[in-house]
This record gives sequence, C-alpha cells and structure tokens, in this order.
Amino acid sequence: EQRARILISCPDRPGIVAAVTSFLYEQGANIVESSQYSTDPEGGTFFLRLEFDCPNIAERKEEIEAAFAPIAAEFEMRWQLRLHNDIRRIAIFVSKAEHCLLELLWQWQAGELIADIALVISNHPDLRETVESFGIPYVHIPVTKETKADAEAEQIRLLRDYQIDTIVLARYMQILSPAFVAEFPGRIINIHHSFLPAFIGARPYERAYERGVKLIGATSHYVTDDLDEGPIIEQDVARVDHRHHPDDLKRIGRLIEKTVLARALRWHLEDRVIIHGNKTIVFY
Amino acid sequence: EQRARILISCPDRPGIVAAVTSFLYEQGANIVESSQYSTDPEGGTFFLRLEFDCPNIAERKEEIEAAFAPIAAEFEMRWQLRLHNDIRRIAIFVSKAEHCLLELLWQWQAGELIADIALVISNHPDLRETVESFGIPYVHIPVTKETKADAEAEQIRLLRDYQIDTIVLARYMQILSPAFVAEFPGRIINIHHSFLPAFIGARPYERAYERGVKLIGATSHYVTDDLDEGPIIEQDVARVDHRHHPDDLKRIGRLIEKTVLARALRWHLEDRVIIHGNKTIVFY
Amino acid sequence: EQRARILISCPDRPGIVAAVTSFLYEQGANIVESSQYSTDPEGGTFFLRLEFDCPNIAERKEEIEAAFAPIAAEFEMRWQLRLHNDIRRIAIFVSKAEHCLLELLWQWQAGELIADIALVISNHPDLRETVESFGIPYVHIPVTKETKADAEAEQIRLLRDYQIDTIVLARYMQILSPAFVAEFPGRIINIHHSFLPAFIGARPYERAYERGVKLIGATSHYVTDDLDEGPIIEQDVARVDHRHHPDDLKRIGRLIEKTVLARALRWHLEDRVIIHGNKTIVFY
Amino acid sequence: EQRARILISCPDRPGIVAAVTSFLYEQGANIVESSQYSTDPEGGTFFLRLEFDCPNIAERKEEIEAAFAPIAAEFEMRWQLRLHNDIRRIAIFVSKAEHCLLELLWQWQAGELIADIALVISNHPDLRETVESFGIPYVHIPVTKETKADAEAEQIRLLRDYQIDTIVLARYMQILSPAFVAEFPGRIINIHHSFLPAFIGARPYERAYERGVKLIGATSHYVTDDLDEGPIIEQDVARVDHRHHPDDLKRIGRLIEKTVLARALRWHLEDRVIIHGNKTIVFY
Repeated sequence: EQRARILISCPDRPGIVAAVTSFLYEQGANIVESSQYSTDPEGGTFFLRLEFDCPNIAERKEEIEAAFAPIAAEFEMRWQLRLHNDIRRIAIFVSKAEHCLLELLWQWQAGELIADIALVISNHPDLRETVESFGIPYVHIPVTKETKADAEAEQIRLLRDYQIDTIVLARYMQILSPAFVAEFPGRIINIHHSFLPAFIGARPYERAYERGVKLIGATSHYVTDDLDEGPIIEQDVARVDHRHHPDDLKRIGRLIEKTVLARALRWHLEDRVIIHGNKTIVFY
Repeated sequence: EQRARILISCPDRPGIVAAVTSFLYEQGANIVESSQYSTDPEGGTFFLRLEFDCPNIAERKEEIEAAFAPIAAEFEMRWQLRLHNDIRRIAIFVSKAEHCLLELLWQWQAGELIADIALVISNHPDLRETVESFGIPYVHIPVTKETKADAEAEQIRLLRDYQIDTIVLARYMQILSPAFVAEFPGRIINIHHSFLPAFIGARPYERAYERGVKLIGATSHYVTDDLDEGPIIEQDVARVDHRHHPDDLKRIGRLIEKTVLARALRWHLEDRVIIHGNKTIVFY
Repeated sequence: EQRARILISCPDRPGIVAAVTSFLYEQGANIVESSQYSTDPEGGTFFLRLEFDCPNIAERKEEIEAAFAPIAAEFEMRWQLRLHNDIRRIAIFVSKAEHCLLELLWQWQAGELIADIALVISNHPDLRETVESFGIPYVHIPVTKETKADAEAEQIRLLRDYQIDTIVLARYMQILSPAFVAEFPGRIINIHHSFLPAFIGARPYERAYERGVKLIGATSHYVTDDLDEGPIIEQDVARVDHRHHPDDLKRIGRLIEKTVLARALRWHLEDRVIIHGNKTIVFY
Repeated sequence: EQRARILISCPDRPGIVAAVTSFLYEQGANIVESSQYSTDPEGGTFFLRLEFDCPNIAERKEEIEAAFAPIAAEFEMRWQLRLHNDIRRIAIFVSKAEHCLLELLWQWQAGELIADIALVISNHPDLRETVESFGIPYVHIPVTKETKADAEAEQIRLLRDYQIDTIVLARYMQILSPAFVAEFPGRIINIHHSFLPAFIGARPYERAYERGVKLIGATSHYVTDDLDEGPIIEQDVARVDHRHHPDDLKRIGRLIEKTVLARALRWHLEDRVIIHGNKTIVFY
C-alpha cells in the first residue's frame, strides 16, 4: 500500500495548487483524488485535500514531510500528511442505547469502518457483553453529578493510555465538561437525534411529536462547549406522519442516527472533514 | 360526476364507522376511499374521511345532509360533506418572488391544481403582467406600517367580494394581523422557506448558511397568530454543502418551496388535511 | 392485549364496509385503523384491512369467525382474522452475506421485528456462530446441482417441523424450484439487489456499474416461479456516481438491501401486504 | 468577469496536475474549483476540470491556448478552454407535453439557466404561443414516416443557421436518425420518463404501473444511436403506491422529469459532464 493523503489550509492566493502538485510530482507521486475549496479567492481561506500514490511512502514519510516544510512555510499552511494505512485509534462512548454502537461494530467487523476500535467507555454496565463479544475492552465508569469530575479524569487517563485519536459519542447521554472537550479539540464526534438547529437539547423526538413535524432527522457534529452547537458534519431525515407517536419516531430515528453517525465518522477518518470556524468543509 | 367526500371528527367510541358507512350504503353510495385516525381509542378524538360515489349526489346533497344530521348529533360530530366538483375559490398573495406563484399557475393551467384561482393580491406591482396573462385579476395593495390596517381592510373586502374560500401566501412577505387571521381560521396556507422549527422568522437561508447545515428545507403550514408556529401540513428538504452560498441556498430552496406549497394546497383542497390543536392529520 | 385485525378481499359492490363495520360494532369492537382500496368501484376487486380492539378477543376468536362466516359468504370474501399477539414463525435462508440476516436479528432482538425467528437455513456453514449466538438453530444444508432436490426436500421437512409461516430469503443465493415455491404461496419474501425491473438476474451491481446509472436500488418481492418477477413489496434507492466501483456499489447497496427487506417483512407480518395478480397492495 | 474553465482528458500518468496548475499559475490565474478522476492510476484515463480566475482572460484566450498547446501535446490531452461568460446557444425540441419546456424557460427567465435559448423546434404547432411569449422563435416542422428525412434536413439546416451548440429533447416524441445524431455527437440531451435501464422504449409509465413498482423515475442522457442506451447524466425517483394509476404516475413523473433534465442540462452547460465510453463523469 503506497497511498497517502495531504490536507492543507492556508490563505488563498495564486500558485498553491501548482506548488503542491509540482512538489508531489517531484517526489514521484501520482495524484488520484483532489478536492479544493476557497471561502473567497480574494483574501479567503483555501482548503486542499490530495490523495496520491507514492512508492515507498511509508519509509519516506518523514523525508517528504521535511522536504515539504519550506513550501508549507511560504504559503503559511496548516497541513498534515497521513498514510492510507495509518489506522486511527478510536474510543466509543455509550450509555444504554445500543443501535449506534452496534452499527459501528458491525461496519468495523465487515471491514467498512477502517479504524481501530480500541475501547468502549460507558456510564452504564448494560452493553458490556455485547462489546466484549467483539473482543473490545468495555470500561464502565459511572457518572453522577458528584463524581463527574473524577469520572472525566479517569476517562481522560484511559484515552491517553489507549492513545485514542478520535472519540465517538454514540448516544452517550452525558454532557462533557469544557475541560474534557479542550483535551480533544475537533476530535469528538457526536450524534444528536434531531435535525439541528431544530430541537437542541433534551427529548427531541417528544418535541418533534408535539410540534407535528413531517420529517425527523439526525445530526452528527463535532463537540464544542456549546451544547449541540458544534460544526455539523452530516445530517439526514426520514418522513413521518400524524400516526407516529414518540416511540415510533424513536424507532424510525434510530436508522437515521446510526447511518448519519457512521457516515460522518467515515469521512472524518478519511480526513475528508475540515473544521472552519463553526462549519465544516466536507470533501466527499 | 357523482363523487363526494365527507370529513368527520368526533369523540372516539365504538360504532362510528358502522353508523356512517351504513348510512351511506342506505343512500346508495359506494365508498371508494377511506381514511381514519384516532388520537386514542379510549377517550380520544376520532377522524374519518370517506370518499364515495353516489348517483345524483349533486341534486340530493341537501337531502342527504338532512338525513345525516341525527347521526352527527348522536356522535357529537363536526362534519362536512363536499361534492368532488365543488371547486373552491382561492386567492394567492404574493410579493416579488414569483416561483411559488408560477408553480401554482402552471399546475392550475395543466389541470393539476383543481381550484378556481379567483384573484391574486400583492403588495408590489411587479407580477401584474405575469398574472394577467393567465386571465386572472391582479390587485396591487401597497402595505406600509402606517397603511397596514387599511390595506388589510381592503384585502378582506376583496376576499369577501370574490367569495374566497382559501388564501395561499406564496412567499407573501408581510405578516398578517391577528384580526385578519381570525377572519379565515384554518384557511390561510403559508410556505416558510426553512425546515421549521429551525430558522423561524426572517432570513432563514442566511441563517442556515451561517449555521452550516447540510440540508435545507421548506415548510407549508396554516397561519395562526404565532409567526411560523401554525400547524404544519408538509415539509421537504434538499441536500446542500459547504460550497453553497446563501444565493445558492435560495436557488435550491425555490424548488422545495414551490413543490411543498403545491402539495400542501392540493391536500387541503381535497379535504385531506384536518387541523387538530397545533398539528395536522393528513390523509394522503 | 385485545387487538386483532381482519383482512378481506372480494368483488367490489356497495355495502361491504357497512356490513363489516356493523358486524364488528355488534361484537363490541372499536376500529383503530382502517385501510381500503378498490381496483375499480364498478366490477373491480375490493380490499379492506381493519385493525380493532375487542374485549376477550383471544377467547372469542372462533365464535367471532363463525358469526362472520355468513357475511363473508354473502360478499364472496377471501378473509382472515388474526390476533395482534399471534406471533408468526419465520425461517431465514442465507448464504454467506450476513448484512440482511444481521439486520433482521438485531431488529428482532431490539423488539422491532415482531416474529418468532424459529430457524436459519443456509447452504453454507459460515454464519453458524453468529446465528447460534442469538439462540436460534442454524441448519446447514449444502446445495449442489445434483443434491438440490434432496436439499429442498430436507428444507421443506424442516419448515414443516418448525411450523414455519413465512420464509425470508436474506440474500440466499440459490434459486428455489417451482415445487418448493408452490409449498409456500405468497409466503416467501426475497430481497433482490437492484431496482427491479432493471438488472434482473445475476451480478446486478456489476451491470449497474457498466451501465453507468446514477442511483442503485434494492427490491423486496414475493417469490414466484419467474425469477425476480414476483409481486414487489418495497423498493428504495441511493445515489452513486462515477467514482464508485462495483465494490462501492455493493457496500452502499447493503444498507438499502437490509432496510428494504426489513420494511417489507414488517409490513408482511402486520398483514399490510395483499398480493393481487402480480402486484401488491400495501396498507402502510 | 475573468473566470474560465479548462476541461482535460488524457492517459493517466504522474505530473499532469502539476503541469497544468503550474501553467495556469504562470499565466496569473487563481484556481477556484478543481475536480479530477482517474479510471485507473495505472494506465487509465485521467479527467480534469479546473475553474479559475485570470485577469483579461477574454482578450488573452487565444494566446493562452497557444501557450498551452505544447503541454497538451506532451500529455496527449483532449482539452477545451471556455470563458465563463461564453454563453452557449441551445435549441429545444418539443412535441406536445410542455412541462419540461416550461421548466427550462422559467429557469432561463429567472437567470438560473445560463444559456441562449435560440430556438424551439416542434413536430406540433401546439406550444407556439407559449414559446413566442418568451420572445423565442418557434419553428413547427411536422414529421411523418414519409417526411422524416426531409424534416431532419430542415432541422439540421436551422440548427446550423442558428449556430446551435446543444440540443435538448424536452419530451420530443420522435426518434432521431443516426445521421442526425452523428451531426451533434455528445451534444444532444434527452429526458426519458423512466429509471433506465428499466422500461426502455415506449409507454414507460404504463409498464411501471403494470409491473407494480414502488418508485418511478426519470433519466437524462446523451442521445446515441441505441434508443435510451446513451450515457446517463442524471436520474431521480419518486415514491408511488398501489393507488396510483398511469395518469397519476405521469403527473408525479412530470416533476421528476423536468427537475432531472434541468439539472443535467445545467451540468452540461457548465462543462461538468464528460462522456467516457457509454458512461459519464459528472463533476458537480
């Protein structure tokens, strides 16, 4: 496997693509996928994602990074080079609802979710057997108002020990503290069970029912300090009607939730998502 | 044409369907479509819509209504019998945006919208030529803060003169006063250019852009005194991404707006929509 | 639980609904859901599905059936009364692909699929462990051209022993013989991995790729003697583009396949699907 | 307006993107949109579309093309440079159905369809008034089996006189001869009223009804000598059910047809569609 990808953002100006692609060509790389976006060709921010094949990329990664540094400096780039088979370690946080967790486990088992699910953390003991049957460690860390700070400290310790890159909140029903969020900026992905910004906060299906909406949705977003206000990665909806009670909405919603979360995580792990202010650029 | 429909709501209890269908059978009618819904079989409200064929229904309508009255009284029904070819008179309110108006005019011209578009009222003169080319009267009633009461009085006078049954706000950019709304309860249909309850109020596409949503939508609802809070009839969405600026959202949104409004109006005119509290039952 | 449902088809003529609903009222039943359809009010076939609550329905089922028989005879009805908690026994046939099987098992475990999954039969041994972990018997019956008749005889014996009502082909890659199909008329549900009638037969994703379609689909249908030609219960699609190779189409398609099959099976088990000629009426 | 776009296809090999983007940089251009695709990085075909801003591009176009020629030769490119405000001239062919034609006219009037609708040609006189009210010439050329060759000769003469670039068959119910098609390779866009390859040929809605499908669709494709077999540009579907008769399918289908055709044409006019064998690459 000789595939890699580079993700770049920098002030927009002429010559960026030429500089990067010429560099890659000189390194013997062949570009296989290219995506770019500029918030404004005049004075905006430019985003570039290139996927390329390059012989011996694994051995040459550091050398290529060193060679690229001057170009990056010239264009004031924030950038990152990642090998295609540099599989990232993720932790999944769950409470009692299992549908999102299971979807991720099944996709992982089927080889569709390319990640190393290193750990599942839950504030409830219920899903231990399910998770362990996949050969994945399950850590039960109860959370109460009193123990929350200690619980988060324990979670952070575990996430470090396991060298976790990305945290997935798969219907984890606890709000993370700003301190916790600050430890993993842009690396915590949540699934909210509504079409944000409609029905921010608790009980969205009950509120959707009360409002009489004709579509329900789910939203996957990065977690920030503002509840349900982080950058949206993906959303989807399903049709409902007057016959559906809140329990029906929950049942129908489960399919959207798990699909949307899995899609967002997949894009994140493939470095297709760039956070820009409170929005995302998604190169899918 | 011997088709008619009856729309009923009443407290739920056993025997309603039997009573109504037996009555129709005795009148020589054959039921061709039936829809029902109960908020709760125990003590809830029951809704029934029957479409049926009945020889000479036009001549016999009053006689049948009189014969049905005792049944209606027994079950405490709110009800209404309407002939299939009793075409309703509607007025369309517009401002400057033409896409929703045009969709309704085209569907009407193509025989898909079964209504008598008796009148178009606008607070701007811009669309006069378009409307008049369809042979429909166009009345320009300017509205300013100072003249609003007078303008509404003039509108109401016209709506009465033209015997208007249903008012369609096809991107009419004025808020109607409670007094106006009270004149046409459950008979004013609006299209809001967002997926309510997200982005209630002004500039929804700009706010959708700022929030970075991945789907935009439109909502058709009955107008009540609470802005954008009335019973929702229909909603739909379309996918957008980071490349779309507010103008793109508006362009993409136009297709959803006009489609959703036309669908909602069609259901309303076919007596498929029942308002129940702040929600709708839609028998489509 | 006092809920039941009656499913009726008969020649259309006035008075059917009145007769049935009056009968149910006399039995003390309250109708909670009603669906009907006529292929033609003049001389067509009429279909009726009523869901109702009736005290002591379990004890009184035979008595009610006997009392209904004269009405059924008068209107030449084919009909069937089923208690809501009369859970049907199903068998799932699989080969090697697990996604459809797993979706059904998970929905069953989550209480969303109301059925008794009595048995899984496969022509391969691969999924034994998965199935048995759900506490469900797994029977491996290899099928070759030479052994097919014997294998089907063995399958039929098992299906009878287990008193199987409905057979689900969850990506079972063998064609059933006409003799087998004749044993379970209208009770074998298949999922085909294309938007029928496009790509009937083998390798639909490869052929979709070759044709360059922009949407792929899946179709759940009743099995008849004509391959992929049986009455369609449900279909759905997903968007694809030029970047997707057959393996991508298969991955994207898996989600549609399992969703469509689960939906079709759910409707079948709730007696919402009526086969009429080579089409279905679905009262969802 | 200084925007332009270049569309390139050539054998894939390392260095293409670097060569093209370096060239553009040297010309003072800033790339604002980039899309690429390779059928196979090893020995496949590479496709590139770049949109860029370049001062004085209108005046410098020929000079830039000349300067680019050696690069194009080196990489064996098929390529084309087009200014953003080089509006293409199109002709619309219609018969009696007006919905697709009207959608294009309305989008054109609203400034959403960036093209010069130079001419409408029809084998029927019906839509003359509609078309002429938009200030567009309408030419009625009747077509019978006997006059078909003459009619096509007359059409071709007109298309040349009017310097037509792209022909849109907006539900034109005549099959074009191979000779006609050969005159406009890759420049005739058709809308077929089914989800191809299902229901190729005549009466697709009737056949969809007979088959009992649960979704109907429309397909926009380039016209080739094989009826309904040309490269697909875009497809979409809508949900239907057992209650829908062929006339309902036609009504529902009209919305899909016009939407799909308008989308395909828009992409074509923006040079986002590349024909590759019997498939398309669409860079939307």
